[in-house]
Amino acid sequence: MNFQDIIRKKRDGKSLDEIEIKYLVKGISDGSLPDYQVSAWAMAVYFQGMDDRETRDLAMAMAYSGDVVDLSFIPGIKVDKHSTGGVGDKTTLVVIPLVAAAGVPVAKMSGRGLGHTGGTVDKYASIPGFQVERGFTEFTNQVQQVGAAVISQSGNLVPADKKLYAIRDVTATVESIPLIASSIMSKKIASGADSILLDVKVGSGAFMNEQQEAENLARTMVEIGKRAGRQTIAVLSDMDQPLGRMVGNTLEVKEAVDCLRGQGPDDLLELSVVLASYMLILGGKCSGLEEASCCIKKLLYSGQGLAKFNELVQAQGGSLNYNLENYGLIEATIKRKVLADDQGFISALDAYRIGHTAMMLGAGRERLEDRIDYAVGIEILKKRGDFVYPGDVLAVLHINDENKIETASKEILRAYTITPNRPENKPLILDIIE
Amino acid sequence: MNFQDIIRKKRDGKSLDEIEIKYLVKGISDGSLPDYQVSAWAMAVYFQGMDDRETRDLAMAMAYSGDVVDLSFIPGIKVDKHSTGGVGDKTTLVVIPLVAAAGVPVAKMSGRGLGHTGGTVDKYASIPGFQVERGFTEFTNQVQQVGAAVISQSGNLVPADKKLYAIRDVTATVESIPLIASSIMSKKIASGADSILLDVKVGSGAFMNEQQEAENLARTMVEIGKRAGRQTIAVLSDMDQPLGRMVGNTLEVKEAVDCLRGQGPDDLLELSVVLASYMLILGGKCSGLEEASCCIKKLLYSGQGLAKFNELVQAQGGSLNYNLENYGLIEATIKRKVLADDQGFISALDAYRIGHTAMMLGAGRERLEDRIDYAVGIEILKKRGDFVYPGDVLAVLHINDENKIETASKEILRAYTITPNRPENKPLILDIIE
Repeated sequence: MNFQDIIRKKRDGKSLDEIEIKYLVKGISDGSLPDYQVSAWAMAVYFQGMDDRETRDLAMAMAYSGDVVDLSFIPGIKVDKHSTGGVGDKTTLVVIPLVAAAGVPVAKMSGRGLGHTGGTVDKYASIPGFQVERGFTEFTNQVQQVGAAVISQSGNLVPADKKLYAIRDVTATVESIPLIASSIMSKKIASGADSILLDVKVGSGAFMNEQQEAENLARTMVEIGKRAGRQTIAVLSDMDQPLGRMVGNTLEVKEAVDCLRGQGPDDLLELSVVLASYMLILGGKCSGLEEASCCIKKLLYSGQGLAKFNELVQAQGGSLNYNLENYGLIEATIKRKVLADDQGFISALDAYRIGHTAMMLGAGRERLEDRIDYAVGIEILKKRGDFVYPGDVLAVLHINDENKIETASKEILRAYTITPNRPENKPLILDIIE
Repeated sequence: MNFQDIIRKKRDGKSLDEIEIKYLVKGISDGSLPDYQVSAWAMAVYFQGMDDRETRDLAMAMAYSGDVVDLSFIPGIKVDKHSTGGVGDKTTLVVIPLVAAAGVPVAKMSGRGLGHTGGTVDKYASIPGFQVERGFTEFTNQVQQVGAAVISQSGNLVPADKKLYAIRDVTATVESIPLIASSIMSKKIASGADSILLDVKVGSGAFMNEQQEAENLARTMVEIGKRAGRQTIAVLSDMDQPLGRMVGNTLEVKEAVDCLRGQGPDDLLELSVVLASYMLILGGKCSGLEEASCCIKKLLYSGQGLAKFNELVQAQGGSLNYNLENYGLIEATIKRKVLADDQGFISALDAYRIGHTAMMLGAGRERLEDRIDYAVGIEILKKRGDFVYPGDVLAVLHINDENKIETASKEILRAYTITPNRPENKPLILDIIE
């Protein structure tokens, strides 16, 4: 087989067969295909797409390109959750303890954050002492004892996807639905869960800006999951503005704890309950959404969710000092208010710009090797639909570097659109695809 | 500047500005841009194209990416000729001595052949003793003394094009008109000629199969030449069947000599006269086609063209023994006839298949490092429009390896389409673009 012919075939809009896709994935994994051919192929896919069968074959070939986790010795239906990435998206921190408290085991392997979106592993790691790098036995033991564990993705899982993503990342070939779908699903399939809940974000702060695109992505992923024998459900939600009021690792942990105490912001609470409920359904604990939602709310308001959160944190070496201000989390040294300079309704709050500013402050990584400052971030006081007067506090910067105050404040102001008329209400949950 | 943004811009169908194109070409030349980004960009160009200004900027930036030949010290208007490549295309061997005999100096740097098309340098090199690798001073001295010299492209001419072509060649991104046009024209501009004649082939044996595509390519190249201050004319001609009757290096030299003796096949003679005439016009020797054509024919039938051919061959160390059979050229050991198995008119003779078969016999290179067997090739006795009976000789294989006879014979037979009706006459010269 000649890889140049495979590139040409895709360039000319034809489908690659399973043997060609396996050859391609093997070549990416073992390095026998040069990067310049892989990137040309990826650009051809960007323009010509892949049909459902090709996308599925690519996901499966990548899933089995390295180690595949076996969780079958853990009793129960193991449910995994994946978010396509957003700004202020701390739902995993809220959802995992609720689902585990309901008796559905959660063995979660998460990636580190990159770009304007945060990573779940970084948020947990901001809790002093919390260990995200653990051996596989320790990890699965904890799932059996506590009902949940969270570790950083490690070992030789999906090496083909890692290499392909590294190439796509620098060749403007990330934004391709079949490539995104097969990348995500290959990791989920290799991670060993029985069922998969996909949290697909739509809007300025998400990879998919348009609902139609996000629906296509979600449908493609659900299809791949089903064909791989994994029950899969996708929840589409709005990411035009950040979720909740906190963006930044420590700040988001604090907000997640508040939410588990029943004090969380409405949007975070609403989405967390919906996601957790679908995970109970996928885990076979409830048969309908109403029953599941009722169960999750009981666990939340009874404090059982928070108790499970603490149990998980302690099992992984973290300490939460609830008697201390700010829960014993490390705070940033400077807090600077950003004030409204106009009067009117907030009709838009650009999640991308907020996420990008938080990254610039040190809350996220521009490159994988960058170090994160867990304490910094943005506290958002005004969101879409709020009315403001000049001088009202829109947001508070939590910052450790004085030199960044001016740029960051300007960026935050630019993220807000203030108009005379009240904007229409937008629903948070946009669609469920199963 | 970020190359990833340049890829994205082209991917999204936008024009790159001159600074971006220079940055790109510099990065290709000095190796600072990784190949995997260059190939992704090339694939984006394949899909999105480039406008005239971009194509011109690319050609100019590549032309000046390395050494640029200065021929200004040689008196007269130096005219270069470039063929886009065909099968049996020995016109350069006929045209150069005719033009030089008319007093237009020709300093020709030629590439080696690759794939199903032959290379001019390989044809000259098949003459025993002929040196194609010479120093620049020797080369220009010969142009001044003999009026013409032919050498293999060497030195650090257009390094950006060399690298870009090597990447395109293995990533299915060769077939892009702006990339082909800028590649050809960058070499011509760097080679130092004042005027350029483009011999653009159309048909199964050419890179462009359709006349519309070839017209676009020709127009793009003529435009680049003019903007670079080089008078440029393109002649479009048919390459659906091989040109002349000989395919293979030694065989083609023999046919070119026959043609210069006034015995050449009609199509080779017709095209050579047209090309040489336009070179006289470009060289300022004649003002109209009729005058130029008359002048060329005089030089041909008076034997002055052949005398100039001999002078050039001898100046470059080659010997022609006209008293020997086959002009002292080295012949292949086996000659095998390929017989018609059907009765009717030859309605098509697939130049690509003939060229590919000749390459397989050893007359051409599949890879740049392959060695050529100068003696082998195909002698074509029947062409489009001829009527044949079963058993008539269609072609003769000139071959040195017995094992290739069967496959080659079958391929030759497959190249012929025999039908009951006489095919329409096709003109050889399709268009002139200036």
